[in-house]
Amino acid sequence: MDVQALTFDVFGTVVDWRGGIAREVAALGAARGFSLDWNAFALAWRARYQPAMERVRGGERDFVKLDVLHRENLDPVLTEFGLGHLGAADRERLNLAWHRLDPWPDVVAGLNRLKRDFILATLSNGNVALMVDMAKRAGLAWDAILGAEVVRHYKPQPEAYNLTADFLGLAPERCLMVAAHEDDLAAAAACGLRTAYVHRPTEYDDAPDRPMPDATAFDIVAADFLELAERLGC
Amino acid sequence: MDVQALTFDVFGTVVDWRGGIAREVAALGAARGFSLDWNAFALAWRARYQPAMERVRGGERDFVKLDVLHRENLDPVLTEFGLGHLGAADRERLNLAWHRLDPWPDVVAGLNRLKRDFILATLSNGNVALMVDMAKRAGLAWDAILGAEVVRHYKPQPEAYNLTADFLGLAPERCLMVAAHEDDLAAAAACGLRTAYVHRPTEYDDAPDRPMPDATAFDIVAADFLELAERLGC
Repeated sequence: MDVQALTFDVFGTVVDWRGGIAREVAALGAARGFSLDWNAFALAWRARYQPAMERVRGGERDFVKLDVLHRENLDPVLTEFGLGHLGAADRERLNLAWHRLDPWPDVVAGLNRLKRDFILATLSNGNVALMVDMAKRAGLAWDAILGAEVVRHYKPQPEAYNLTADFLGLAPERCLMVAAHEDDLAAAAACGLRTAYVHRPTEYDDAPDRPMPDATAFDIVAADFLELAERLGC
Repeated sequence: MDVQALTFDVFGTVVDWRGGIAREVAALGAARGFSLDWNAFALAWRARYQPAMERVRGGERDFVKLDVLHRENLDPVLTEFGLGHLGAADRERLNLAWHRLDPWPDVVAGLNRLKRDFILATLSNGNVALMVDMAKRAGLAWDAILGAEVVRHYKPQPEAYNLTADFLGLAPERCLMVAAHEDDLAAAAACGLRTAYVHRPTEYDDAPDRPMPDATAFDIVAADFLELAERLGC
């Protein structure tokens, strides 16, 4: 592999969205005096993510930032959990919970090692402001914030991968897509990017049954970002 | 001022393009056995910068990356300086000299101070790969690489400023445009951004006559990035 840039999926791969959203809605509950299954709330909000993007991918609506989709998706989830009375300011603040997610424990150290030898860019469906806020809060050492909003195509559309490589001035095969999701990696590989799978078994469930893929399924299969750095000689 | 992000002009404001291009063409001359007025070469190449972008701004051609404009502009400059014999590989390498410019001496320390309190984004006419390569080589602590290529409009078109603020999720007045060029700042101010002038008197000339603007002409007028940090309380 002659790779110059690593392009990263973020939700699930870099940060623990389930734990972060559960934590934020629990904090709001403590302040407003309500209680519910925080984990179920996080899963329900996330469940509306792909269908919302699918309307953009399918051309049913123009491209809008993920912040907008998250905000639209929040309203029915609040109603579903009996929180239809929450005011606009609380809804806005809760929507920005996605900007305040924590990275998995290996991420900061792993990115700092990888950054010495590679260009590190986000290739997420998250919008630029979300990625910038998250990175500043968590100390994520990105060299560039790219991905869906910049190219105006949501993954797994091929434009998301191809145009990101073009922004980096690199042929797709000089880019290594890093993700915890096999479908994301398969779409990247179809565009010519190299692929690194990183295992995040607790993304959806504390008692996970996500299997580790076969070691030959991707260019690299690693347990975490530290093993990824090791495998890349950093 | 309630500013959350600083958006930076780069050529001349952050890096010394004249010194860097002169150094790179001198290195090529040493390797290939030619000599010329390196400084004049840098100025001649740069002189074709605005006219080339003007063809894009005026709609005469579609948006292309600055790397492409630099490469197109290089050929007539080489001919003008009697270097029409240089091969394609030398031309490609020389074109990437713009990716290898050095920052002014106060820049790295200034950005590191500013980064603690503000989002730091490029708002340059340089393309993303150019900005990323330059930042990695020089240690420039950007939080985001934005600007002309991302918004597909060259400064001083208003879209360059307005759309960059939108990518950051900020109203224009929450952004402070930092530049050594009064026309860039005037265009930013017309879009509602706040403005910080930084003095780079030797950008074009070792014995400069560039006057410091009146202290009231912009929100901040500073000698360098360290004074800018000081003025912003960093």
